Amino acid sequence: MTGPRYTRLIDSLPATVPFVGPEEHERIAGRRFTARLGANENGFGPSPRAIAAMAAAAGDVWKYGDSTSFELRTAIAEHHGVAVENVLVGEGIDGLLGYLCRLVIEPGDPVVTSEGAYPTFNYHVAGFGGVLHKVPYADDHEDPQALIAKAAEVGAKLVYIANPDNPMGTHHPREMIEAMIEAVPEGTLMVLDEAYVEFAEDGTEARIKADDPRVIRMRTFSKAHGMAGARVGYALAAPELIAAFDKIRNHFGMCRISQAGALAALQDKTWAAYMRLLVAGARDRIDTIARANGLSTLPSATNFVAVDCGQDGEFARAVLQELDARAVFVRMPFVAPQNRCIRVSVGPEAELDAFAAALPDALKAARAR
Amino acid sequence: MTGPRYTRLIDSLPATVPFVGPEEHERIAGRRFTARLGANENGFGPSPRAIAAMAAAAGDVWKYGDSTSFELRTAIAEHHGVAVENVLVGEGIDGLLGYLCRLVIEPGDPVVTSEGAYPTFNYHVAGFGGVLHKVPYADDHEDPQALIAKAAEVGAKLVYIANPDNPMGTHHPREMIEAMIEAVPEGTLMVLDEAYVEFAEDGTEARIKADDPRVIRMRTFSKAHGMAGARVGYALAAPELIAAFDKIRNHFGMCRISQAGALAALQDKTWAAYMRLLVAGARDRIDTIARANGLSTLPSATNFVAVDCGQDGEFARAVLQELDARAVFVRMPFVAPQNRCIRVSVGPEAELDAFAAALPDALKAARAR
Repeated sequence: MTGPRYTRLIDSLPATVPFVGPEEHERIAGRRFTARLGANENGFGPSPRAIAAMAAAAGDVWKYGDSTSFELRTAIAEHHGVAVENVLVGEGIDGLLGYLCRLVIEPGDPVVTSEGAYPTFNYHVAGFGGVLHKVPYADDHEDPQALIAKAAEVGAKLVYIANPDNPMGTHHPREMIEAMIEAVPEGTLMVLDEAYVEFAEDGTEARIKADDPRVIRMRTFSKAHGMAGARVGYALAAPELIAAFDKIRNHFGMCRISQAGALAALQDKTWAAYMRLLVAGARDRIDTIARANGLSTLPSATNFVAVDCGQDGEFARAVLQELDARAVFVRMPFVAPQNRCIRVSVGPEAELDAFAAALPDALKAARAR
Repeated sequence: MTGPRYTRLIDSLPATVPFVGPEEHERIAGRRFTARLGANENGFGPSPRAIAAMAAAAGDVWKYGDSTSFELRTAIAEHHGVAVENVLVGEGIDGLLGYLCRLVIEPGDPVVTSEGAYPTFNYHVAGFGGVLHKVPYADDHEDPQALIAKAAEVGAKLVYIANPDNPMGTHHPREMIEAMIEAVPEGTLMVLDEAYVEFAEDGTEARIKADDPRVIRMRTFSKAHGMAGARVGYALAAPELIAAFDKIRNHFGMCRISQAGALAALQDKTWAAYMRLLVAGARDRIDTIARANGLSTLPSATNFVAVDCGQDGEFARAVLQELDARAVFVRMPFVAPQNRCIRVSVGPEAELDAFAAALPDALKAARAR
């Protein structure tokens, strides 16, 4: 008796996981975090209207969710001034990136991203046998020109950029992103990850014609709407590309409660404005805490702040570990020189208090190593 | 400017959808169904404890769900008397079937199922380029011996059977399933879909060693637990196979609210017993309604009943359409001779009342065509 015969691709894949979640860290350590500031979640939580809508939908969960997410897609289309046919709702941006890779990537196909950019994109590319070509960040920003040059050089099927960027929190003005789209090589699709764009200053969100076949933009309810656990992301793209997902996606894959929550969240414009204020305030607080400890921060257009620990990646890793030992969960960039930073997500006052309380000792302990 | 370059496989796939959902039917017709009895949902709904747990979790949805679903997997493992390493939680059985196909199917690989069995399995097989080989039902039951013989003949990578069966509602005693496992050809993995097994009589659920590498069983919270919209399914299999999913699955794909609801549902054993009684009562009621209209039913081990309309597929299709015109949603099998039936899901009294009220006129109209 032997097990199943896996595909050659599956046999070749490593048994890695893009991220270890905070619950897993907690189980390993045998205690809870007092500050959960590592996963770029939004601790301010969803709109009360979204919470109420989700609680109300719980009793209706015997019904499958609408396989076309029609009401939600209609609301999203109105919100962006595009047609329903330009909108795809899916199981978070992670789920959508997986589907997208499946649509275009065969083993050996080239894909371009930045060294140190979103690992889950890389995970899905590798999962379909794509070959990643990476360009370095330039001055803690993703480098549109280098990305485009590399895409042209290798004949990339996809070129990925996040604006604003994760993990650094930096951003480009929309003109730079729009110029990048104009420069996308024929046969390459640009993946514009705008998970954090609602937190950025006006003028960051690129103006893109809804039917432009050169780009697909990814948005989410996980960040600005504080609903990471609901798993609602959406893509905006040309109707032909949106329709292609229907060939392969899990049609009844959306949680009905999450659909209801996202719809209510989108309709609560006042909360969205309030959230921008809360997040901006928390970013300032993280900056203040960092400076009080002799550290600097990078300007952030997101719901997290990259805190420059002032030395190399090994030192930042030590700071992170010492924070972890003090029940404060943060993460950090993967590659030099960005990995001189730790990445601290926003959260309510009590969690930032815990961060503020732990940081001095954590730095001291890291320096004493 | 052209669009993305899709894979050859994607270009070859048709733009089909396994099922049109009830909301889509409602939009097309411009009115709501008074009886939603077509999607094998469980209109009795989830345990009140599960509803309460989901409502309580709504405010916590700013957190990603635990990527390992550890608490839920632990509870499922205890429930089945297996190790946590034998359990995978995923986005419904549909989601798990998609991952499974991705693990084993390369274009051209043979897969065996029954003619008229679960279309979403076929959708995923085709979506990865697998070639489906189908054997007919025997006397409205899936035919284990024919499935095994075909699997051996074509060298199938997967052989699928549901026990109890969908769409007919029939079942095999566990001894027959156990004998099928013993006969699985080397190099074939048996997919045992037990979505409905909680509704079957004792002695239906096969006794399978947790580490048996020849079979993976699929279970769900959609049916017995009345949580179709929550998208929580699970697989039970050998640890090596469970671990293989980690190479490709959407690790943070589970809705946090759904995880909380499923855990509470699993713990409410009293509700589970109550649900069996409610569903058995509703099956009897559907049988009574059918007989009052001169029709017969198939014995059901599920939460739906195949009502034999006594003529061919064309007539059953007419009955279904006439029910639809009377705002009653049912579905029907796809192939002859099973398509002489319509498939009516259980539901609370008011919905079955609406079915009972609509059926005489629907039959009359269908006969008058």
